[in-house]
Amino acid sequence: MENKILLSHGSGGKQTSSLINNLFVKYFDNNIIKAMNDSAQIKLVGTRIAFTTDSFVISPQFFKGGDIGKLAVCGTVNDLSVSGARPCYLTSAFIIEEGYSMESLELIVKSMAETAKKAGVKIVAGDTKVVEKGNVDGVYINTTGIGELYNNINISASRAEVGDLIIVNGNIGEHGMSIMCERSGIDIYGELKSDCDPLNELVGCMLKVCKDIHVIRDATRGGIAAVLNEIAEASDVSVELNYENIPVSEEVKGACELLGLDPLYIANEGKLCCFVPKEYALNVLKEMKKNVLGKNAAIIGKVVEETHYKVYLKTVVGGKRIVDMSSGEQFPRIC
Amino acid sequence: MENKILLSHGSGGKQTSSLINNLFVKYFDNNIIKAMNDSAQIKLVGTRIAFTTDSFVISPQFFKGGDIGKLAVCGTVNDLSVSGARPCYLTSAFIIEEGYSMESLELIVKSMAETAKKAGVKIVAGDTKVVEKGNVDGVYINTTGIGELYNNINISASRAEVGDLIIVNGNIGEHGMSIMCERSGIDIYGELKSDCDPLNELVGCMLKVCKDIHVIRDATRGGIAAVLNEIAEASDVSVELNYENIPVSEEVKGACELLGLDPLYIANEGKLCCFVPKEYALNVLKEMKKNVLGKNAAIIGKVVEETHYKVYLKTVVGGKRIVDMSSGEQFPRIC
Repeated sequence: MENKILLSHGSGGKQTSSLINNLFVKYFDNNIIKAMNDSAQIKLVGTRIAFTTDSFVISPQFFKGGDIGKLAVCGTVNDLSVSGARPCYLTSAFIIEEGYSMESLELIVKSMAETAKKAGVKIVAGDTKVVEKGNVDGVYINTTGIGELYNNINISASRAEVGDLIIVNGNIGEHGMSIMCERSGIDIYGELKSDCDPLNELVGCMLKVCKDIHVIRDATRGGIAAVLNEIAEASDVSVELNYENIPVSEEVKGACELLGLDPLYIANEGKLCCFVPKEYALNVLKEMKKNVLGKNAAIIGKVVEETHYKVYLKTVVGGKRIVDMSSGEQFPRIC
Repeated sequence: MENKILLSHGSGGKQTSSLINNLFVKYFDNNIIKAMNDSAQIKLVGTRIAFTTDSFVISPQFFKGGDIGKLAVCGTVNDLSVSGARPCYLTSAFIIEEGYSMESLELIVKSMAETAKKAGVKIVAGDTKVVEKGNVDGVYINTTGIGELYNNINISASRAEVGDLIIVNGNIGEHGMSIMCERSGIDIYGELKSDCDPLNELVGCMLKVCKDIHVIRDATRGGIAAVLNEIAEASDVSVELNYENIPVSEEVKGACELLGLDPLYIANEGKLCCFVPKEYALNVLKEMKKNVLGKNAAIIGKVVEETHYKVYLKTVVGGKRIVDMSSGEQFPRIC
């Protein structure tokens, strides 16, 4: 293969075939994608399906803890997982800049294949477009996923109830701060890396312990502040957070202080918030802590009657601090 | 709403919510998208599913006969249709350039909604990313679709058999030539417009007349030359085309002559080739002609034993002209 992406790799002709066979089909290796039909033909066990899409435009494309390919698989796997579905199949569609390095593209595709394997999903269909230099920044990836919804599970942002305890599966803000540090050239926080990871196994275990988890959401763009506000809004309740219980690593704290940011608003790619009836919360927490992606899980707050403030922090001295939904854009292209 | 797209429309915060509610949910109007969960929850009748993805990066975004929105819906609907599936649900993911006109975006979204309605599909989930000015050319759209595979239908590029007749549903090359003329500023061909249209109804009718159609493919990038080569390759056969039977409008002929192009290689967005056992071909052709999208349908060739040439034209004077797969890229960003 050429060592740079050419416009002809997106032409639908010989070079496109070569790219598909020597890169995508090679790494995504499964019988469905190999059939090379206009659409992947798949069989599902159930007929209740979760279906979700996400495009990834992150810059830089390679970062501590991952790359755009790993992120693209995790993002969609996680959206399916937090809907109460077992992720099964993904499509992947690339928009690539003319002149992009074939070596980088191969690293990305390989990373997608590895992450898909880890999450137990198959990438069964794809698309490649190449645009002229300057009309895309390197490579953007869309992944769209299908999952089979678990039976007797009813997870929805509108199901939060007064009394529910809110659990997060670990330290917040690591993805966003890692990208921000990478971009700003700050590297004093050596241990800081993206938390990007597939959460399907963790969610599966949580649902085994408690079928009646009311809400699960992954806390990506906008951080946990955004998801908690969305959930409170959808459920007509308020959320009270205990500041000291929210797990934040020293690195994220340090980087946030340096850049004047609040970890509550920083994107995660391997963190979820779940709303669990009080009586099951400790069991769910215990189960989460058994999983490597939940070892720092913590109960961070509870659902209260709707007040004037959708989400607020109870501070150590007993005060309240409103956690509003963010307005404006602090960090473009974090995912 | 603002009259231009801002980076904050992609932040996951307030402006993103506003854009989703006032634009996407408003026009794509259905209960599934309104639920606003992390993934759309859908019910399917069957468990044999077709699943396909496509990104659209066409330039210009508005052209005679359509726009990037209409194209994005037709492209995926058609990929599902030619797989022998009834298109059911689509996702749509937007990557938008900061500063893009809100009015244009609304026209695109409206056009997607209208085309989806025409094709009988629902757009049930979406994603919006905004990138800094200069990092995308206006707007790129990904659509991914799910269809229910018809029972007892087995359409595959590898099923072409010696003796099969090849039918195309109308004049070729109109999408590509219309875009080329638009870009080159050539407007002497007033009637020339993109053939972009959803083919699901046509394919449904064809399959009612003959369940044993061997191959159906839409002839997009690379034109009918590319699809016929792919099919011949996948089926280990050769294809003989009759030059005079291939339907081409006077406008496309004229524009092709002017630009030195061959209509066989020009992209279509509402044209398919099908390979039909000889005994059913006339019935299928008759049925196609009843449909407005098949009124110029014609039998353009037949499948012959594999020869040295995968696809060739039999010319009026009895000669052969090889129709190879295109190499290189003549027309970037045609879809």
